Amino acid sequence: MLTLDMIQDAQRALSGVARRTPLDPAPKLGRGLCIKAENLQLTGSFKLRGAFNKIRSLTPEEAERGVIACSAGNHAQGIALSAAQLGIPSVICMPAGAPISKVEATKGYGAQVVLVPGVYDDAAREARRLCQEKGYTFAHPFNDPLVIAGQGTIGLEILEQLPEVEQIVVPIGGGGLISGVAYAVKHLKPECRVVGVQAVGAPSMYLSLRAGEPSELKIVATIADGIAVKRPGDLTFALCREYVDEVVTVTEDEIASAILALMEEQKTVAEGAGAASVAACMFGKVELKGRKTVCLVSGGNVDVTTLSRIITKGLSKAGRLVELTTKVEDKPGSLLRMLQVVADSGANIISVSHSREDKESDVRACIVTMVLETRDSRHAEALQLELSSRGYLMR
Amino acid sequence: MLTLDMIQDAQRALSGVARRTPLDPAPKLGRGLCIKAENLQLTGSFKLRGAFNKIRSLTPEEAERGVIACSAGNHAQGIALSAAQLGIPSVICMPAGAPISKVEATKGYGAQVVLVPGVYDDAAREARRLCQEKGYTFAHPFNDPLVIAGQGTIGLEILEQLPEVEQIVVPIGGGGLISGVAYAVKHLKPECRVVGVQAVGAPSMYLSLRAGEPSELKIVATIADGIAVKRPGDLTFALCREYVDEVVTVTEDEIASAILALMEEQKTVAEGAGAASVAACMFGKVELKGRKTVCLVSGGNVDVTTLSRIITKGLSKAGRLVELTTKVEDKPGSLLRMLQVVADSGANIISVSHSREDKESDVRACIVTMVLETRDSRHAEALQLELSSRGYLMR
Repeated sequence: MLTLDMIQDAQRALSGVARRTPLDPAPKLGRGLCIKAENLQLTGSFKLRGAFNKIRSLTPEEAERGVIACSAGNHAQGIALSAAQLGIPSVICMPAGAPISKVEATKGYGAQVVLVPGVYDDAAREARRLCQEKGYTFAHPFNDPLVIAGQGTIGLEILEQLPEVEQIVVPIGGGGLISGVAYAVKHLKPECRVVGVQAVGAPSMYLSLRAGEPSELKIVATIADGIAVKRPGDLTFALCREYVDEVVTVTEDEIASAILALMEEQKTVAEGAGAASVAACMFGKVELKGRKTVCLVSGGNVDVTTLSRIITKGLSKAGRLVELTTKVEDKPGSLLRMLQVVADSGANIISVSHSREDKESDVRACIVTMVLETRDSRHAEALQLELSSRGYLMR
Repeated sequence: MLTLDMIQDAQRALSGVARRTPLDPAPKLGRGLCIKAENLQLTGSFKLRGAFNKIRSLTPEEAERGVIACSAGNHAQGIALSAAQLGIPSVICMPAGAPISKVEATKGYGAQVVLVPGVYDDAAREARRLCQEKGYTFAHPFNDPLVIAGQGTIGLEILEQLPEVEQIVVPIGGGGLISGVAYAVKHLKPECRVVGVQAVGAPSMYLSLRAGEPSELKIVATIADGIAVKRPGDLTFALCREYVDEVVTVTEDEIASAILALMEEQKTVAEGAGAASVAACMFGKVELKGRKTVCLVSGGNVDVTTLSRIITKGLSKAGRLVELTTKVEDKPGSLLRMLQVVADSGANIISVSHSREDKESDVRACIVTMVLETRDSRHAEALQLELSSRGYLMR
């Protein structure tokens, strides 16, 4: 079982291995808000801490046989780097469709990657089979006291870096991170609130706590792939029930907005799971009330192609990017007059497409679709009203 | 004129105003490389340092009348925040087409923004006119000893944070930043190399140093808008000639790749100008040879819509995003067979568009345009070869 000693012991062991990540003020994201930047951790996520603490605790015999894990994400990289640093062989099973960047990164840290046809569950089955066949130690991503103790070192660090902290907001997938952090914090500063955050598309811990027992979701769907977990662990469930004050959920749009805000205001790159804590604070899911609040940004391993889509989504939600379809007469100068209205409003044109092919349009009209950059939703609405009143706006 | 005392004095004055930005190792970007993260400075760039040092040195009479600047970028925000902190009125002239985000940010720091019809030169003329009419003090963005002394505090910080530094790489626009840094460093550790970097589309200092006198470019064009300066200052030119070891240039693609690498490997957001120093190291413009090298990342104020385009550009350059046009027979199952070839290669499909409208295509063929994610250029080429050998590839 977990003890405070185990977490403190893990902290000593991690010194010089994991980075002591910065705790930075983020006043523009919320009053009294700070970011604990585990996206700047080696491997790009907090997972290194738990993985290293697990692997360093193997017996010499276990260490010789090696370690195996099933993950297409941060756990894989944490295991791979930890094993490499300890000179222990590691095997990672991934579903064959895993993002190329994750496969390459994991190989880069020195692990042997086994691509298993099918989905995550197939890869997990193969990992268990190899485990039995070859005698590897299976490294669970969250439901293991040594892993939880490793993640708990973040709680100790936060208390050292900001002793006056009053509230800590932590993303929840399987619950390993928040279990460790909450355990450490509630033993050393019981009055500090610990709040968990899940994506509304993967609320397994949220629903399990309501149900009073670990329950399994049929499907999970969220851009925050790092916390898309179908079922919490028994151990993490019990720890969350005892030490976590509250669990809240955030939507996909809120997560996208938080990723965008972190890039614009903090110049930092967070993945969906990592930004969930910030989303909860930005959108009033967690009460700030001027409390000194630390948002744990758990990781930064987001695919850059995904990031492009998130930027677009975030800008649209904030009313800073709008697509408008307008109709202009099919004769010289019409387009120019319509664009003058746009220019006068101060909106910036990102793209314009002008066509005569729309079946809805009558013979003497052209369809002009524009993507525009606007200041905010009010600005966007004012422009739509203006275009509408002049008969340009179609929908 | 500039003295080391002035820089040390500026450092004391800036304590508690400017952030002491982190110096982080960046081994994946180059052997022995560190990043001095001025993109994490308040206002998102180093400009705050020089601006504050200038404004705090105004006489009480000057302070009462206020300060004026012409900028659509980081200088504007530096001036606005510094003036607000010192309780001094500030006016910023910007060309009317300035990005909305920059206008809003500058207003947000408390400056009065005057949007001037026309381009930068028109805004500068209006600023000079207002300066004469209202008695404001004009705050030059770089050609001023007090501004240069402020920027020079970064040189002092680097020597404190990494005393064993052997080389510092600094982006150059007007030359204020590198003048201050080089002056400080060469007076305290003369054997440390200082290398300047310019965008190949705006090489004013590079060409001026070759010509032996400040010379003016007709046009400048680069995504690194923060260093798109037509003519270096007389003062910064003289300081660069005396204290800078070498100036190199980087291309637009190299800058885009560096922005991408900073996001992926360092989880940090840099603007084009800020990433130029990293680009120079990544692409062999600056010799690393295992030297302890610090890249000064000067700012992070990049428009997120621009960032989307840069991501795409950077991925294409690295061969990680390819667009292929293929031809398949217009009958059931043809598309599927072609896509099987793509899937077998391990490439990931981002988008597919399938049409029958292309005029080039013969009647019984369809055109399929795909955007694919690939591991690297070799992977992309292998796939193209495979598609070509089966008669699918068009161009």
